Amino acid sequence: MPLPEERASARRVIEDLKELAKLTSNERGAQRVAWGPVWREARDWFTAKVDRGVGVKTTRDSAGNLWASLPGSGKGSIVIGSHIDSVPGGGWLDGVLGVVAGLEVLRRFKEGGTTPPVTIHVVDWADEEGARFGRSLTGSAASAGALDAHGELAHLVDRQGVKLPDALAENDVTLDGMMQARAYFDSLDPLAYLELHIEQGPVLEEQRDPVGVVLGTMGVERYNLKFVGQAAHSGAAPLHLRKDAFLAAAQFALDCRAISVRHSGKTPRTRVVATCGVVKVEPNFVTAVPGTTEISIDLRALDGKVLQSMLREAKKAAAAAAKKHLVKVEWSPLLHITPRPFDERLMAFARTAVKEVTGKAPELPSGPLHDAAEMAPLVPTAMIFAQSSPGISHTRFEDTPEPALDKSIRAFLKLVDATLAALPLAPAKRGKRR
Amino acid sequence: MPLPEERASARRVIEDLKELAKLTSNERGAQRVAWGPVWREARDWFTAKVDRGVGVKTTRDSAGNLWASLPGSGKGSIVIGSHIDSVPGGGWLDGVLGVVAGLEVLRRFKEGGTTPPVTIHVVDWADEEGARFGRSLTGSAASAGALDAHGELAHLVDRQGVKLPDALAENDVTLDGMMQARAYFDSLDPLAYLELHIEQGPVLEEQRDPVGVVLGTMGVERYNLKFVGQAAHSGAAPLHLRKDAFLAAAQFALDCRAISVRHSGKTPRTRVVATCGVVKVEPNFVTAVPGTTEISIDLRALDGKVLQSMLREAKKAAAAAAKKHLVKVEWSPLLHITPRPFDERLMAFARTAVKEVTGKAPELPSGPLHDAAEMAPLVPTAMIFAQSSPGISHTRFEDTPEPALDKSIRAFLKLVDATLAALPLAPAKRGKRR
Repeated sequence: MPLPEERASARRVIEDLKELAKLTSNERGAQRVAWGPVWREARDWFTAKVDRGVGVKTTRDSAGNLWASLPGSGKGSIVIGSHIDSVPGGGWLDGVLGVVAGLEVLRRFKEGGTTPPVTIHVVDWADEEGARFGRSLTGSAASAGALDAHGELAHLVDRQGVKLPDALAENDVTLDGMMQARAYFDSLDPLAYLELHIEQGPVLEEQRDPVGVVLGTMGVERYNLKFVGQAAHSGAAPLHLRKDAFLAAAQFALDCRAISVRHSGKTPRTRVVATCGVVKVEPNFVTAVPGTTEISIDLRALDGKVLQSMLREAKKAAAAAAKKHLVKVEWSPLLHITPRPFDERLMAFARTAVKEVTGKAPELPSGPLHDAAEMAPLVPTAMIFAQSSPGISHTRFEDTPEPALDKSIRAFLKLVDATLAALPLAPAKRGKRR
Repeated sequence: MPLPEERASARRVIEDLKELAKLTSNERGAQRVAWGPVWREARDWFTAKVDRGVGVKTTRDSAGNLWASLPGSGKGSIVIGSHIDSVPGGGWLDGVLGVVAGLEVLRRFKEGGTTPPVTIHVVDWADEEGARFGRSLTGSAASAGALDAHGELAHLVDRQGVKLPDALAENDVTLDGMMQARAYFDSLDPLAYLELHIEQGPVLEEQRDPVGVVLGTMGVERYNLKFVGQAAHSGAAPLHLRKDAFLAAAQFALDCRAISVRHSGKTPRTRVVATCGVVKVEPNFVTAVPGTTEISIDLRALDGKVLQSMLREAKKAAAAAAKKHLVKVEWSPLLHITPRPFDERLMAFARTAVKEVTGKAPELPSGPLHDAAEMAPLVPTAMIFAQSSPGISHTRFEDTPEPALDKSIRAFLKLVDATLAALPLAPAKRGKRR
């Protein structure tokens, strides 16, 4: 039986989330786009909640991350985090669920009159979505020392022509300041990082699981391929004289599907995917044999070795398809992300917590990235997913039914309790993670 | 040995073509777009050439086709035709080669002081290209009674917003008038139709043949397919929950290629093609599993039964691909053209003529349509192709080397002579063609 106060806590989190949604959404969905006025309003709301509910002042680090910290009795700290920012027209739960659940952790200590064994930091990472300027995980990457602020951000411009550094300046953040966020993070002496987030995918819904334990974020190998053949008239060019760039791309896409099926294991841990999302054919006339075809490939796996095997096979497949159709192929890299498997010890706590609340502990990898992916190389990290239903993301229709929301919050509170009780964690068996 | 006067004739045709190119091209290519001022200028040039070289006045029928007629001694007539109009920025030979070769036929009779055995009509068909309003073969279709002028033309508008009926009015042509062109054509009592044209494809060039005998114009079955699945996030959607519309389209395209290879015989007569020229993927993001994919299919064959088999197999392939990838597929018709095989007796004359000039008589089907395709159902029809080098069309780079041009003109003159000598043709073995 769950403790009654956990149910009450979950209720309070859901009420807060509804209150914030009302404050920061319009008919097109949530509008808490990072660095803008609605986002600042949402953060003011959070600051007031922290002030009133926990009795502490929030602070901002030099990357614009917003911290609420409840001092503990022992050395070190745990960090609970997620993000208040949303895409324009986003859902009511994406990110903010984890921040408000963190707030609730602090409130429970405050109301219980107890001091936590270590300091608990709740962080609202700045600009997780990258919705306005295209660089996601900005704040958490800065804290992880994984951001080259000048190299990556200085040149970014939004659709209205505003430069990212100018948008930062409106929020009293500088590129130089961003580079100092890692030092602040280290000064907190963090021992663990925990995050609650909605799945934003169809897996838990399809399995009818309200809550899931996240195995880590998948690595990504993303490329653009350009197949170059020779455009020709569909009537005038006989088959044997054609260099059809689209047929080569089509073969490549089907081969990548086959590669992903071949590398997929039977467990969630061994799930992999391959996606050709962008296809551009030239000249793109009904009477023209395609002369060029650009196609994107996005390969994902939790196991870095598997991901590299998939990439090698995809490269072979592209070369073979090009050869067969008498065309050339060029590869351009778009994105390379290392897989970030989470901490086995904290995942064990998460499994116990989820099982206690829901009766089972389904596991799944996260295809999308999360701030936790930036934390995982630095500090033992775990994540819990609440079911999304429908299993879609970045639209106002994104949702989680309240019973699943309730269970996910309660499981997360249990994960926090178990983590605090186990600190300091014994050294991980697999050795230092970075 | 070819007669010396045929070489001189070919030289004169080439000189005339160069003269017209100078008059009606700019740095972007030929600009003789139907119904416009440059086209009218080109026709005035042709009319003056007819006047000066043949001593007859050109006449225009009610569809805007321009006729130069040299009366013969016997009943009936032959028609030699092609088109002076070009696409904007087109090549110097597309269409006009056949018209000027026809002019040369008349000039030879005039200069030789002989009366042809039957009347010879040289026709410049109006708006073969359909470059401005999208309806090709307008003039020849009108003469063939195969044009529903009100239904097909009344609503057409060019890029500047000019309505086709208004463009016609500038040329003293009306939609009602167009419907009378068939009666005029029948009044000519035509016994054969002959056309010389450039190939606009790579076949003769690849075979190093300067001239070829055209077997007919291929039938066309053209459709747009829409595969409809479900868009999803490339990271969040596991393979087994995907409905990837692009993979279904890719499979369809490869299957259509295989269908065309399977139906291709070893002879030019049994050549078939299948082309997926347009591909549109939605949402077309690197991180999105394609939710819908539109793809065009253009099937061509000279044998109508083969074409229908290909279409049936393509439909099966689309259904199977859709089923495999858990998506739906809808077909929308774009174009249906009946194959138009040419007259076996006239083709035999063409083979003899081409062989006499070049030493061999390669045959090939025409994938692109020509005015001859409109004539074939009405009257015994044959066509000769001059090699294109490079084998491309509708650009200013389209060309035919002068030696090939010379040979094609000389072969065409021989085809005309052989046809005139054989008239009236015995009834075709295959019975009436329509």
